[in-house]
Amino acid sequence: MCQTQSTARRNRVLWLEIRPPYLIYLGDAKDRLAAKTGQGIVDWRSDWAIGQLRLPGCNADLGIPDMTVEAAVAAGAKTFVIGTVSSGGVLPVEWTDVIVTAIEQGMDVASGLHTRLESVAEIAAAADECGRRLFNVRHPDQNFATGNGEKRSGKRLLTVGTDCSIGKKYTALCIERELRARGVDAEFRATGQTGIFIAGRGVSIDAVVADFISGAAEWLTPAAEDDHWDIVEGQGSLFHPAFAGVTLGLLHGTQPDAFVVCHETTRTRMRNIDTSMPTVEQVIDLTVQTGRMTNPQIRCVGVAVNTENLPERQARDVIDVLQDQLSLPVTDPMRFGASPIIDYLLAVA
Amino acid sequence: MCQTQSTARRNRVLWLEIRPPYLIYLGDAKDRLAAKTGQGIVDWRSDWAIGQLRLPGCNADLGIPDMTVEAAVAAGAKTFVIGTVSSGGVLPVEWTDVIVTAIEQGMDVASGLHTRLESVAEIAAAADECGRRLFNVRHPDQNFATGNGEKRSGKRLLTVGTDCSIGKKYTALCIERELRARGVDAEFRATGQTGIFIAGRGVSIDAVVADFISGAAEWLTPAAEDDHWDIVEGQGSLFHPAFAGVTLGLLHGTQPDAFVVCHETTRTRMRNIDTSMPTVEQVIDLTVQTGRMTNPQIRCVGVAVNTENLPERQARDVIDVLQDQLSLPVTDPMRFGASPIIDYLLAVA
Repeated sequence: MCQTQSTARRNRVLWLEIRPPYLIYLGDAKDRLAAKTGQGIVDWRSDWAIGQLRLPGCNADLGIPDMTVEAAVAAGAKTFVIGTVSSGGVLPVEWTDVIVTAIEQGMDVASGLHTRLESVAEIAAAADECGRRLFNVRHPDQNFATGNGEKRSGKRLLTVGTDCSIGKKYTALCIERELRARGVDAEFRATGQTGIFIAGRGVSIDAVVADFISGAAEWLTPAAEDDHWDIVEGQGSLFHPAFAGVTLGLLHGTQPDAFVVCHETTRTRMRNIDTSMPTVEQVIDLTVQTGRMTNPQIRCVGVAVNTENLPERQARDVIDVLQDQLSLPVTDPMRFGASPIIDYLLAVA
Repeated sequence: MCQTQSTARRNRVLWLEIRPPYLIYLGDAKDRLAAKTGQGIVDWRSDWAIGQLRLPGCNADLGIPDMTVEAAVAAGAKTFVIGTVSSGGVLPVEWTDVIVTAIEQGMDVASGLHTRLESVAEIAAAADECGRRLFNVRHPDQNFATGNGEKRSGKRLLTVGTDCSIGKKYTALCIERELRARGVDAEFRATGQTGIFIAGRGVSIDAVVADFISGAAEWLTPAAEDDHWDIVEGQGSLFHPAFAGVTLGLLHGTQPDAFVVCHETTRTRMRNIDTSMPTVEQVIDLTVQTGRMTNPQIRCVGVAVNTENLPERQARDVIDVLQDQLSLPVTDPMRFGASPIIDYLLAVA
């Protein structure tokens, strides 16, 4: 029944690296936004995304070849990644068959849905029988210790934000790419579902039990060589009343040497909440004030402005104004590159 | 087999009120500290603690009558409370029999252990058969929403601390008692295991998934009459690098009008961590700064100093010095009463 079978039956749920390349399953995603996990993989790890599998009625297209499970396996795909969201994060029963087929054809399966893959009996049985791994990236299954606050070797940069969903993941990825381009040993550390697919590993930090937020962040960014940079994907905002606890625990556990504030100038109210946006200065001040508890050297090394809603001229004006105001490098790293931030980072940190 | 049986089989695990009075089970607690949960109940709800059940070799004594399960039920006990800690929070197999007997005799069972009661087959079967409830207070089983940050009616006071384990629960209980003595409608809101046994309900806030810390705190302290005070048990410290995320989420969700800082002057390093203690002023400043995000009216209404390690004269000196320094009421509420804080609270809030 299974195309490949490991000699020893493996643990069904392990926290190990998700093996690329991926076949990205989009199901019947109703629009591009529903497929943003898949899009993130294509944007940042295009060589890992060898194909997409779409059901009739799917309105998203990642611009990569459509493939059956069999064709993807023949092309070398190692993991079937569910790259779309479903209503309430539930795994639709109609998806069971294709997931079982993927397992039988030799792929591991990775999902960011709320439903655990192994909670579907057919999927669990197929994974057991075929010795394939199931990754539920929304459910961190490791046992973390509580944080210990001890300073670790190596360097860390954290992206923080004036709000949620404001560019923290993409900014971190831009910084990783630019550092690597300059020969610096840098690694993106994922703290959310899409980031985990992009990195192949990480911790969904907001899904960790509250007692272990900073402990999980310590685990994610371990001691390293002195010239190594971990570039950590931030979550939430210290000023978002729903998620600031996650943000603070991540900050304390990461103990960053440097941070970049992500901001969007056209947003006036915070996401999903009736609260006005903080200023970039407020975020810098509170991040330094609280971040000092685990790293007295913490400093802001720049601001990443998401200008996708602005014409180029206006985007450049916004950046110039902020730069004058803050005396820090400001850029839209997706639009104009991360160089100003990297120049400054390497000069001061 | 069962002494009482409900007509309809109830849900085994519900988040409802734990029904007093309690029979407090101490097992073979090796010392007084191991029985501190039971001690907390006796200290604050002595009328709920009708007896203790101790195994041979138990070195703790709550100073209440020793009782068998049968005698406790005859005396009116409704819930068998595990009032001791075990190694690693695991339920020892030797305890199964007495728990099953308690269920069969008509009691619900409440535990703060890590092991879920219903994970022991005999306990689950007995509870099902007898229609009794099992409370795992370390495991919040509700589905919380994420926080919405909306201002609610009613008033709230939160105890915060310069460190963990510094008197936040006892201070909150002292304040509840003194407010009630003055005819104020006040209710203690529990956020930890012992507190939940004392209140009969609550949420183990550090056991909630990180995304829902402030949402759970909002749920715990719902809209109320304008003159009602919720007195909320704080957790952790904004300055404790392992737990500050929990503290901040609890602060945002509680949106307190008033807070009291709990402190111990003889402690020089933070608990279980190599970090120096913050000052009371630092805690006041950061609590006001971050608490303003969900309640602009937040203010400090006093300091509770734990002076149990000091002779009385020295304790009074410490309190006087802090009071002069802060221009706020300072007391050891357990030793000298909470009156100075309550006088000030009722005058200003």
